[in-house]
Amino acid sequence: MKKAPIDTVFNQGEPNPYGEFFTGQTYLQRLSANNDVWNSSIANVTFEPSARTNWHKHDGGQILLVLAGEGRYQERGKEIRILHKGDVVRIPPDVEHWHGAAPDSWFTHISIETNLPDNQTTWLAPVSDTEYK
Amino acid sequence: MKKAPIDTVFNQGEPNPYGEFFTGQTYLQRLSANNDVWNSSIANVTFEPSARTNWHKHDGGQILLVLAGEGRYQERGKEIRILHKGDVVRIPPDVEHWHGAAPDSWFTHISIETNLPDNQTTWLAPVSDTEYK
Repeated sequence: MKKAPIDTVFNQGEPNPYGEFFTGQTYLQRLSANNDVWNSSIANVTFEPSARTNWHKHDGGQILLVLAGEGRYQERGKEIRILHKGDVVRIPPDVEHWHGAAPDSWFTHISIETNLPDNQTTWLAPVSDTEYK
Repeated sequence: MKKAPIDTVFNQGEPNPYGEFFTGQTYLQRLSANNDVWNSSIANVTFEPSARTNWHKHDGGQILLVLAGEGRYQERGKEIRILHKGDVVRIPPDVEHWHGAAPDSWFTHISIETNLPDNQTTWLAPVSDTEYK
């Protein structure tokens, strides 16, 4: 495991147990596991350069809070958005999208699953190098 | 308005419009206003040294993610907890509590209201200097 050279604010966490749905190496630090007291699932995700999620969608939506590094976000059919520390991304329910690091930068965001407990994630195909670049 | 000498990560925002429920100067930057797409209310709150909320409670609970500085958190009848960057506070529904800065440090946390849209905040008395110290 490599130590992120950026300020992840929260612990970098462990190699992502959902790595099969990502390209490249990512790390996951759970900040609040879902339960029926808070109905809130919050994690910190750190991406090595070029690492990114597969295309996917959440039927309850998701919000990303960018903490460090430079990242990428794209919704199906739209331009890639460049992300920096302090940016907020609100992903509507059922919109196919991906997020990840810039090619030459580590990247960290908080992810907040919304509309719990009924928020299912559907994982789709990897983001190809052509789509990413 | 004073510029925080700590890294608030997100914008420091404006003097807190809910200042009547706080002691001392605080700043609020809304990160995601509540609506019926995400049912999520997220803000960044920055406290000048010694500034703190009144005692209060949320009937749907709240989660705090600490970004910078040194802070304080207390639930009614319990010891004061000292907070630092990277800490997470999960406040159960209906538990009376307060949070704020250390006496000699600025402090910034993200606040996430949980169990929206039905989460009402009840504001109570200020935290006296005796309770704070």
